[in-house]
Amino acid sequence: MTENPQARRSGCAIAFALDLIGDRWSLLIIRDIMLRGNKTYSDFLEAEEGIASNILNDRLKRLTSAGVLTKSRDPENRRSFVYQLTQKGRDLAPIIIEMIIWSGKHDTRDHARKGILNRILKDRAQFEAMLKKGLTADKLDSAQ
Amino acid sequence: MTENPQARRSGCAIAFALDLIGDRWSLLIIRDIMLRGNKTYSDFLEAEEGIASNILNDRLKRLTSAGVLTKSRDPENRRSFVYQLTQKGRDLAPIIIEMIIWSGKHDTRDHARKGILNRILKDRAQFEAMLKKGLTADKLDSAQ
Repeated sequence: MTENPQARRSGCAIAFALDLIGDRWSLLIIRDIMLRGNKTYSDFLEAEEGIASNILNDRLKRLTSAGVLTKSRDPENRRSFVYQLTQKGRDLAPIIIEMIIWSGKHDTRDHARKGILNRILKDRAQFEAMLKKGLTADKLDSAQ
Repeated sequence: MTENPQARRSGCAIAFALDLIGDRWSLLIIRDIMLRGNKTYSDFLEAEEGIASNILNDRLKRLTSAGVLTKSRDPENRRSFVYQLTQKGRDLAPIIIEMIIWSGKHDTRDHARKGILNRILKDRAQFEAMLKKGLTADKLDSAQ
């Protein structure tokens, strides 16, 4: 990763994870795929946080080269590409779930959405298993 | 947060968490306190990843103003300050733990350290409870 050129490599497990996902935008792209079933460049560009196209390009390249995403031709539109999570990417589900739980406890803003939190609190193990299998894309609405 | 001025606020729980901890250095500081018992500016500066002093200053200010850390006079050296996790900060323990588990599965480098991973795999619930109470600082060695 080139974003933190001053960062030295350590044997620490947390630093290893952060080398891949230690920035806001990478995890928002992973969220888009994992929880919303988004797949294409324009899907990601339309997320409400407003990712800039140069940042989106960079993060998609990184996540693909790190083995978290795959990029392939869209079978429904051969001129376009789709991005999907690998198993390594789907294994990030518990981190995403813990972030949702943490925010559910500490985000006191009125407009905080609780749809997915409620599903997690109802049956976390089942929800996590679904995400790890990549099954939620077509089963979740835009509640999150 | 000023690091992502282009980022729009959303009601998403993941985006809320990432506003606070969505960068590598913030989480490495939290790791230093939570797992290593580090407390002071110079402790953080000495971490093997080599944080730059301007970044360290910025992240300590942010994490303090966000209610994740407190800053107070060091009772043992009144000319110095110590940083400690609030309950909101200690509640990040499950996210840290899931990162360690994920890296344990996907970090195949020879020098990857497994000390803390083994403790988590042995009894995750107990380990998480210790971190949430802020009890590990003096019980962990530098295995991580």
